Amino acid sequence: MSGNSFGTLYCVTSFGESHGPAYGGVVDGCPPGLDLKNEDLQKELDRRKPGSSRHVTQRRETDTVEILSGIYEGKTTGTAIGFLVRNEDQRSKDYSAIAEKFRPGHADYTYWQKYGIRDPRGGGRASARETVVRVAAGAIAKKWLQQRYGVLIRGYLAQLGPHPIAFKSWDEVGTNPFFSADGSVIKKLEDFMDQLRESGDSCGARVNVIAEKVPVGWGEPVYGRLDADIAGAMMSINAVKGVEIGAGFASIAQKGSEHGDEMTPQGFLSNNNGGVLGGISTGQEVAVSIALKPTSSIRLRRRTIDTQGKATTVQTTGRHDPCVGIRATPIAEAMLACVLMDHALRYRAQCGDVTPPTKVG
Amino acid sequence: MSGNSFGTLYCVTSFGESHGPAYGGVVDGCPPGLDLKNEDLQKELDRRKPGSSRHVTQRRETDTVEILSGIYEGKTTGTAIGFLVRNEDQRSKDYSAIAEKFRPGHADYTYWQKYGIRDPRGGGRASARETVVRVAAGAIAKKWLQQRYGVLIRGYLAQLGPHPIAFKSWDEVGTNPFFSADGSVIKKLEDFMDQLRESGDSCGARVNVIAEKVPVGWGEPVYGRLDADIAGAMMSINAVKGVEIGAGFASIAQKGSEHGDEMTPQGFLSNNNGGVLGGISTGQEVAVSIALKPTSSIRLRRRTIDTQGKATTVQTTGRHDPCVGIRATPIAEAMLACVLMDHALRYRAQCGDVTPPTKVG
Amino acid sequence: MSGNSFGTLYCVTSFGESHGPAYGGVVDGCPPGLDLKNEDLQKELDRRKPGSSRHVTQRRETDTVEILSGIYEGKTTGTAIGFLVRNEDQRSKDYSAIAEKFRPGHADYTYWQKYGIRDPRGGGRASARETVVRVAAGAIAKKWLQQRYGVLIRGYLAQLGPHPIAFKSWDEVGTNPFFSADGSVIKKLEDFMDQLRESGDSCGARVNVIAEKVPVGWGEPVYGRLDADIAGAMMSINAVKGVEIGAGFASIAQKGSEHGDEMTPQGFLSNNNGGVLGGISTGQEVAVSIALKPTSSIRLRRRTIDTQGKATTVQTTGRHDPCVGIRATPIAEAMLACVLMDHALRYRAQCGDVTPPTKVG
Amino acid sequence: MSGNSFGTLYCVTSFGESHGPAYGGVVDGCPPGLDLKNEDLQKELDRRKPGSSRHVTQRRETDTVEILSGIYEGKTTGTAIGFLVRNEDQRSKDYSAIAEKFRPGHADYTYWQKYGIRDPRGGGRASARETVVRVAAGAIAKKWLQQRYGVLIRGYLAQLGPHPIAFKSWDEVGTNPFFSADGSVIKKLEDFMDQLRESGDSCGARVNVIAEKVPVGWGEPVYGRLDADIAGAMMSINAVKGVEIGAGFASIAQKGSEHGDEMTPQGFLSNNNGGVLGGISTGQEVAVSIALKPTSSIRLRRRTIDTQGKATTVQTTGRHDPCVGIRATPIAEAMLACVLMDHALRYRAQCGDVTPPTKVG
Repeated sequence: MSGNSFGTLYCVTSFGESHGPAYGGVVDGCPPGLDLKNEDLQKELDRRKPGSSRHVTQRRETDTVEILSGIYEGKTTGTAIGFLVRNEDQRSKDYSAIAEKFRPGHADYTYWQKYGIRDPRGGGRASARETVVRVAAGAIAKKWLQQRYGVLIRGYLAQLGPHPIAFKSWDEVGTNPFFSADGSVIKKLEDFMDQLRESGDSCGARVNVIAEKVPVGWGEPVYGRLDADIAGAMMSINAVKGVEIGAGFASIAQKGSEHGDEMTPQGFLSNNNGGVLGGISTGQEVAVSIALKPTSSIRLRRRTIDTQGKATTVQTTGRHDPCVGIRATPIAEAMLACVLMDHALRYRAQCGDVTPPTKVG
Repeated sequence: MSGNSFGTLYCVTSFGESHGPAYGGVVDGCPPGLDLKNEDLQKELDRRKPGSSRHVTQRRETDTVEILSGIYEGKTTGTAIGFLVRNEDQRSKDYSAIAEKFRPGHADYTYWQKYGIRDPRGGGRASARETVVRVAAGAIAKKWLQQRYGVLIRGYLAQLGPHPIAFKSWDEVGTNPFFSADGSVIKKLEDFMDQLRESGDSCGARVNVIAEKVPVGWGEPVYGRLDADIAGAMMSINAVKGVEIGAGFASIAQKGSEHGDEMTPQGFLSNNNGGVLGGISTGQEVAVSIALKPTSSIRLRRRTIDTQGKATTVQTTGRHDPCVGIRATPIAEAMLACVLMDHALRYRAQCGDVTPPTKVG
Repeated sequence: MSGNSFGTLYCVTSFGESHGPAYGGVVDGCPPGLDLKNEDLQKELDRRKPGSSRHVTQRRETDTVEILSGIYEGKTTGTAIGFLVRNEDQRSKDYSAIAEKFRPGHADYTYWQKYGIRDPRGGGRASARETVVRVAAGAIAKKWLQQRYGVLIRGYLAQLGPHPIAFKSWDEVGTNPFFSADGSVIKKLEDFMDQLRESGDSCGARVNVIAEKVPVGWGEPVYGRLDADIAGAMMSINAVKGVEIGAGFASIAQKGSEHGDEMTPQGFLSNNNGGVLGGISTGQEVAVSIALKPTSSIRLRRRTIDTQGKATTVQTTGRHDPCVGIRATPIAEAMLACVLMDHALRYRAQCGDVTPPTKVG
Repeated sequence: MSGNSFGTLYCVTSFGESHGPAYGGVVDGCPPGLDLKNEDLQKELDRRKPGSSRHVTQRRETDTVEILSGIYEGKTTGTAIGFLVRNEDQRSKDYSAIAEKFRPGHADYTYWQKYGIRDPRGGGRASARETVVRVAAGAIAKKWLQQRYGVLIRGYLAQLGPHPIAFKSWDEVGTNPFFSADGSVIKKLEDFMDQLRESGDSCGARVNVIAEKVPVGWGEPVYGRLDADIAGAMMSINAVKGVEIGAGFASIAQKGSEHGDEMTPQGFLSNNNGGVLGGISTGQEVAVSIALKPTSSIRLRRRTIDTQGKATTVQTTGRHDPCVGIRATPIAEAMLACVLMDHALRYRAQCGDVTPPTKVG
């Protein structure tokens, strides 16, 4: 398995660079017979699209997706689904100033040193724009999971820089540019972002993602655990530096009598485990939380070196998200969807003849 | 790739149950010509061995490892390295009382519901005893990484239940039963553990692992990122609920000007990135932190259901670690070693002809 | 690994259908720094292009390839190389008559029964047109292998229906529409094909492929053998029903004293092994031979059933190759190139520090 | 996926050398609930055991297998099945004479040059004794396929050196030391083998394997074709130099009107395709034929070089099969079983909701 693919049975392969002609992906392993149209993918892509508010990058991209294969008369055929998202707004000149320097906190340096060559235009392959492929692949997984098992995958922004955001209602999430589940804090967040942007700096964020109605039994111990694959998938998203399942780091200070979720015939009484025990889904909500670091491309002047190894400074003046976390919600949802779908298929393969013997809930 | 294997080129396969005849593993992909003896593996296995202090499980296991293949005249031949660790102290009767009940917070329930059958003796495949395989496989990786690249991988206990433990010195770690890098807190930790054990409860822990001298360039964007593979590997360890790379969740509240590690011709000025940028190693220390939940097998009575789905209660009276985190340090080191070795080999495959063009440090 | 990808480190993913908008592929794992242009791929695609003589399908396709990623300033960057070949000449009406029937010897029936749905236009995913992806991916592998190791991969038509074709000279292969290495038989082959086409029937073929200058040591025993991967790759080509390495089926009747290739300080004295011993390349020519069955789409009326399971007959009147083997030479070369490149990379990963200890030749 | 593992969902990992302490394997992905005992594996291992007649190697091995994991109360649990076969009769002294020389036609040379080190005792990892792992893994697959789908996998010797052996009856196969389906030729085969052994030479063989009652729909186009995976698996068996599916190389000279298997409502009228069309099983018998080369270890003196690259000669006087093909029947059956089981699971994963729409037979 190469670095640009993931998944064992629901397999996603990605290509494309920020300022190349297009991004594209191949989704392999989707069951046949699923209704699927460009619009199913487009709907999700529009949620992560740039330029949707003043708080995100002003790059102009319609992110129009074209499905190229795997569909016949509106249904998946079981063959590979290829799709393309053409790049439209590529101002390569923006990047000429930084082609010979490494932005602190950016992949500039590591790509250069690893490959001995790099595409500096817009971050090349390291651009967060690659996440269009994830979102498109996730849209297919979401739809199948929803239709086949009723699984519902939703996320929200749980913290913006220093500001934690309470979960109020799923209904709020789609009504503001922050994916905030609390509509009452939008003004505060906007002020914070305006000030941040003005200062030329950036901030981090926390995104929470929840999958409801995941059946019991998905996940393959001991290395192919559901939570292990989720952690890997989440950490593969640009800028992610931490992943928690359920109680996460709060588990450290918990007692066993507090953490271990008790059960009744109606189900679990709590969900510290985050929907996964022993690497296998419990039937509860799968709850994931991720930390995204502040954008590394900022306007403030910073110390760095150039490709000759000489000391210099750098400022980044292109169009960047001051907080990549704001647009990360649909991306994290997509990654969770892909992992769950992969494990749904893996479950059917090995345990297709098993009926969970104990009736709960 | 099935659930009991991990790694693309340095590939580890595991089998065994807590109360079966043996655990075993196969390490495939190790380069030829490495000096390797049973003792190289044994040394690491002894570090995670049960019964080494009163603070861990009192199960009596020598954990003696036998290498069965892949070695000729003391050197690896490049063929698969099979090894075995026989189980010795299996008191199956201890578990008869819980065979028909699910321990809160344990994999009992999910294995049962997934497979329709489970080996209840000592947790069966879900037992943390499986980590002998990881530690043995990690010992080989550690040795090769050290000899070939000078990579040094070490970990320590950074928090025990509510008690954070400062990093003082690597020299302290081997001198106490907690893998604490601060010798001055041992008395406090012992008192805490004695009290915890007496109360019949358990607690969580944080373990930090550091890999020094990792060369720049390891890791395959965009999905096969070094940090993504590390996160997956760490989350696959029993009881782990969270993973951080570098600044981790602290990144959320950081500004970009604070988080982005500045560079000089001598190298980076900080390491918020934790040694990975864009999924590729930077040449700095790779810094990982994990959260382990409290042991789910506790003596306190808890509400649960039985395999018929009826309400009942359960107490676990077998021999269990009151804090699995205490013995987790060598396990986390092993997983980091395996992932790094996998990426060292993957790096050579694709970039074996590249010399990092910019000289730093 | 899903069905539409192959390779461990040089990984090829394919999508597209005969009458969809495009075929495309993703090549992942190519080392950075290789000079690569559209023309490098086009040159090979032109060799397998339809319509190049009256003996192959008259479908009009320029097979123009567009590289979409993975290249910067004319060099590979080490990131995924995506490419696209748009379909141009899609006469879907040709196929309406057979949408409800299964052509004998064709994948119509199995796709239908497996997926419960199929794209009947031009064979859909089962069309041999998919091989454009293989040829494009193989072109990259060929170029890298040639530049890095001097490996030269060439094939020729060794039998056309009942007519064996002797190997005379590589120089002949490019001068006739059959990839025949014997220019003197072209007239005979043309007459045979003209008669065959007129009769509405089709025929099989044998293609031989040779890789010269493959270094000793490529291939991973015991399951990842070089010859095993070659056999799998060749058998995955449409219409292939048999694969031989070296002496192949002739080995059955050989004595050990005849088959076992003797060695001298100058090298091997024969090559019954076909360049592979124990799954590892010997340093000799890697010699592969494949059998391609006759095209299943023929004009002659044949008994079959329809999708309702009722008896009927079918004639295929679309534009088809009367012998798919004629255009198979560049495809077989491409598959061999991909497998060799994959193993070249795998060899570097594990044995990058080894110098073959015995000097030969 | 490393070289010592194969399979996507039914995953087999192998280790061990001819004169090491043991061979062993791990089978991962077996569905839970299958009755499985040591005897199920032993039964198949006994069929390929050495020393069973004077026509095979006289090495004394009971090939006793011990299952170490994955079974609870006589049933598979869905976790990894580890097993071990200890080596018993290791006369390493037999091999001292050839440690510094390369046997013509043997893997001696390639292992040495690839790894820079090799275990010369009994061929080390290249010994055909590794096939115990395949046979054990295949025994599990055979049992599951038989119980779950009624699939029946059987093979026979179809040619011994220059002597083709007709298929008479499956009942004959188990009654003679050659796996011959024609009991009337045993005397002739014995005479041939006696003479061959006396001459110090060896011969090749052809083995045919048939899988009956394979459901329609198994196999993943376009690279993960059922026949492609079969070809790869077969070619990975020691000494195999050719693989055919169905009509195989005879397809070359067939006309399309002859080769393409016509259909009626009762099913196919012939089976030139060998049970696979477009890489997907047709529901007919899956028919595979393989060519095994003559044993390379022969008593006759042959020219070769030593590890210094100097000219010398070599005679092999250890205990070797004069025809490895004789014991290859259970091995080929095992490999076919493993591939079919892998695809059975893959089919369920993707197409678990599909009922083949057209009723046939």
